[in-house]
Amino acid sequence: MASPQKSGFGTHVVKVGKHTFGAGRLTLIAGPCSIESREHFLETAEGVKAAGASFLRGGVYKMRTSPESFQGVGPAGFSYVAEVKKQVGMPLVSEVTDPRQISDLANIVDMFQVGSRNMYNYELLRELGATRKPVLLKRGFSATVDEWLKAADYVIKGGNDDVLLCERGIRTFESKTRNTLDLGTVAWLKAHTQFPVVVDPSHGTGRPELILPMSLAAVGAGADALIIEVHPRPSEALSDADQALNFEQFEKIARDVRKVAHALGREVESL
Amino acid sequence: MASPQKSGFGTHVVKVGKHTFGAGRLTLIAGPCSIESREHFLETAEGVKAAGASFLRGGVYKMRTSPESFQGVGPAGFSYVAEVKKQVGMPLVSEVTDPRQISDLANIVDMFQVGSRNMYNYELLRELGATRKPVLLKRGFSATVDEWLKAADYVIKGGNDDVLLCERGIRTFESKTRNTLDLGTVAWLKAHTQFPVVVDPSHGTGRPELILPMSLAAVGAGADALIIEVHPRPSEALSDADQALNFEQFEKIARDVRKVAHALGREVESL
Amino acid sequence: MASPQKSGFGTHVVKVGKHTFGAGRLTLIAGPCSIESREHFLETAEGVKAAGASFLRGGVYKMRTSPESFQGVGPAGFSYVAEVKKQVGMPLVSEVTDPRQISDLANIVDMFQVGSRNMYNYELLRELGATRKPVLLKRGFSATVDEWLKAADYVIKGGNDDVLLCERGIRTFESKTRNTLDLGTVAWLKAHTQFPVVVDPSHGTGRPELILPMSLAAVGAGADALIIEVHPRPSEALSDADQALNFEQFEKIARDVRKVAHALGREVESL
Amino acid sequence: MASPQKSGFGTHVVKVGKHTFGAGRLTLIAGPCSIESREHFLETAEGVKAAGASFLRGGVYKMRTSPESFQGVGPAGFSYVAEVKKQVGMPLVSEVTDPRQISDLANIVDMFQVGSRNMYNYELLRELGATRKPVLLKRGFSATVDEWLKAADYVIKGGNDDVLLCERGIRTFESKTRNTLDLGTVAWLKAHTQFPVVVDPSHGTGRPELILPMSLAAVGAGADALIIEVHPRPSEALSDADQALNFEQFEKIARDVRKVAHALGREVESL
Repeated sequence: MASPQKSGFGTHVVKVGKHTFGAGRLTLIAGPCSIESREHFLETAEGVKAAGASFLRGGVYKMRTSPESFQGVGPAGFSYVAEVKKQVGMPLVSEVTDPRQISDLANIVDMFQVGSRNMYNYELLRELGATRKPVLLKRGFSATVDEWLKAADYVIKGGNDDVLLCERGIRTFESKTRNTLDLGTVAWLKAHTQFPVVVDPSHGTGRPELILPMSLAAVGAGADALIIEVHPRPSEALSDADQALNFEQFEKIARDVRKVAHALGREVESL
Repeated sequence: MASPQKSGFGTHVVKVGKHTFGAGRLTLIAGPCSIESREHFLETAEGVKAAGASFLRGGVYKMRTSPESFQGVGPAGFSYVAEVKKQVGMPLVSEVTDPRQISDLANIVDMFQVGSRNMYNYELLRELGATRKPVLLKRGFSATVDEWLKAADYVIKGGNDDVLLCERGIRTFESKTRNTLDLGTVAWLKAHTQFPVVVDPSHGTGRPELILPMSLAAVGAGADALIIEVHPRPSEALSDADQALNFEQFEKIARDVRKVAHALGREVESL
Repeated sequence: MASPQKSGFGTHVVKVGKHTFGAGRLTLIAGPCSIESREHFLETAEGVKAAGASFLRGGVYKMRTSPESFQGVGPAGFSYVAEVKKQVGMPLVSEVTDPRQISDLANIVDMFQVGSRNMYNYELLRELGATRKPVLLKRGFSATVDEWLKAADYVIKGGNDDVLLCERGIRTFESKTRNTLDLGTVAWLKAHTQFPVVVDPSHGTGRPELILPMSLAAVGAGADALIIEVHPRPSEALSDADQALNFEQFEKIARDVRKVAHALGREVESL
Repeated sequence: MASPQKSGFGTHVVKVGKHTFGAGRLTLIAGPCSIESREHFLETAEGVKAAGASFLRGGVYKMRTSPESFQGVGPAGFSYVAEVKKQVGMPLVSEVTDPRQISDLANIVDMFQVGSRNMYNYELLRELGATRKPVLLKRGFSATVDEWLKAADYVIKGGNDDVLLCERGIRTFESKTRNTLDLGTVAWLKAHTQFPVVVDPSHGTGRPELILPMSLAAVGAGADALIIEVHPRPSEALSDADQALNFEQFEKIARDVRKVAHALGREVESL
């Protein structure tokens, strides 16, 4: 990438297999917050694939505010995650929470996710810069755009140009929504940087009934991809049960998002 | 209005002449930040009409952070404002900044606007409750949704059910955009209250290049109307010169917004 | 006042009877949130006088978030407020919420208070500039220092130099305290402007157990005065019952504040 | 520690050599932002000791927003840091930015510091829980008190009860100060938890002229310790040059803080 902060050169296109991010197409990334078991992950993957997603999300390692909460299946899940991916034929983005996880996790993910709490974890970013996998870098809870772009620089300086920025809501005084999804910043990033931009309306609202309208809004603002939490039975989810969608709700989003994308002359990435 | 905070009854529809707000149609409100002169207002009104707007905005009284700034033409503009409205055949929303302006302003406006700085001006709200004109109530810079709904209650308790809520961006730590346009709250209001919701992407971003994408996003989030600042020659504007659009830019928005609205099965209000 | 924003000339001293604000002495302002009745006001005034206050606070007009809440006794209280003041021999600061109240309220107050919700009410500020009484200007919930200083300019341009700035807590993401008392801004104002600065630890914390430590902190930060809500029986208060102190709690504050002031070479204003 | 979140049992006292935190005495921690060289660290340590500090601060590893900025001397400084500490006879708190640094850093520090950017780095916190050194846990830029207490839980659950909470300013809309020092939260923590509380007025204001008043304010709010950045020649500092104090400025703080502490019946920790 010549320079991700200069405008006027179009977006830096990130390729993952036959998927592209930043070339005009819209990608739907979906899956569970946490991968809970082989059966749970397979059921979810098949469900979101049937509903229109072309890329999987799912956490093996989880960052949880309280040490009492479920922290992810960890390495015990590696083998079945690889099998499920192969069975459904979809790429996977999953969170890395410690530099020491990178080498093993690289065997099962197609894209590394850096969560909000780790946006300032520069050692982690630096070491991801030494990998050859794209990095989806979530914005810190209250990171300014300048800090976010400089965090991306840690990856790029490490030698890896393939950074996607993911807006997931910022912390404000308002509490009706879990976070305030900052789509104005999404539009700013599309106008002023070369990064592909992903929007997470699940964390960005924290309320199931708002995920559809905010997915449509994100497409309007110019997002290159949406990343959405889906669970076969949301009320049973081990994490983020409050904001997970079921298959039917996600399918409605996939359908309506497609209409808006087409109206704006954009295609939705398919498998 | 039975109760604006109960959901499940559909939106309370506000009528202004043949326009409706809250019945599914999308209204484009456009015009200058401040009305500067007869010629300026006429030129702007004709320009936004030709470009696709069906409702005028324009300030006669202006609230300005500094006492040194232009404070609006005031009553000197009343007669020509009335003439221009008649000539172009469009209704007008304009800001009221003091209860003592209500009776005179009522002669020239079709809808009163209460600005962000006056959202907590309960005496003003109470007295607007005694009028028979709809009230477009902007959210305070950092008002919670609960405070905003209670401010609306001051108007409603005064006897006037026709309140529209206008999201115009909240104050956060981020400074790339002038404000953070809180579309998640727009979606929340549409899901949980009966108020028609207006979005102001001009103040909500403060940057011309972001107004198009955020207008599209607002429609995706469910807005009933957009209110946009337009000036024949933005760089010469006496207020908000930094965020005003020219006619060509506004026309592009009107066109693209129409595409998204249609994709979602909605019509755009026409004259 | 030569110019309130220039530093290096010392603070502009505001005089109210034999009280001074900004000349190094510390003033304790105390009284009820709302004046509820003649008896209530007299009992409170005598209580805070005995405990060490030298200036009274007390609302006749109240700004309340909900139209259902108690809105103050209004003009019905004017005559007994004047009597109580005379009986206890203390000056009074009270809130003005509408320009049309100014002329009558001027008969009973020694200082006008402009509340947070009215900091942007420029018409009110302008008309207070035409009076000869000092104005205690509270900072808006989320007003920047620049906006606050420009609001003060509206009063000063109107011809009244006697403006005191009152920090009362700003709105942030934190909810353990009602507001975030911004004492760093108090220190900044003392270093960079000529305004006397008042701190309101009652609204600034919203929690009785925090008012003592934050009063001491405010003195450390350089406040010229403290304004504190006291009620004979806090749990019976008609407004802000949650944060009012009883006489004993206030007396403890007056005592400890005096120790800190003396340690820093400052006197506490007495009657 | 029985439970750090229960009140009513007094503060959990943390001991470091003959120093105590949380037993009523006030500790002054001072030193450079970054340790730059043997000579620089020795000169600074001797300077702050002479001025009244009894505990050293100084970064070996630095978290910097931009990858271009100075990142600390790293392990190259270990041997001379140990020598300087011995020579001046003062304990040291220094930041750990990666779990893999813990074992080596433990040889030269008496207390680990976890910086704001790492407050959510749960793996780091967990591994610090396995050490026998106290942990000074800075609040994240925009961490709620609940999140902060849960982050402390990660250390405690790991087996290490000796956690000190350090308030260093939160992110708000205000930009006159670098951060908004949240002393209301300091008072809340002292009233409702058992943790010793440290205040960092250097980062909390980012402006040299505000560090004295905010140090006094912090003592008023109940802080158990202050941590202050000092540099022999602030304008030459390799990091945080804008907010470092020189020896003379720090000595004035040490003197005035002592007066306020004594007025409130507290002693200042000495060597």
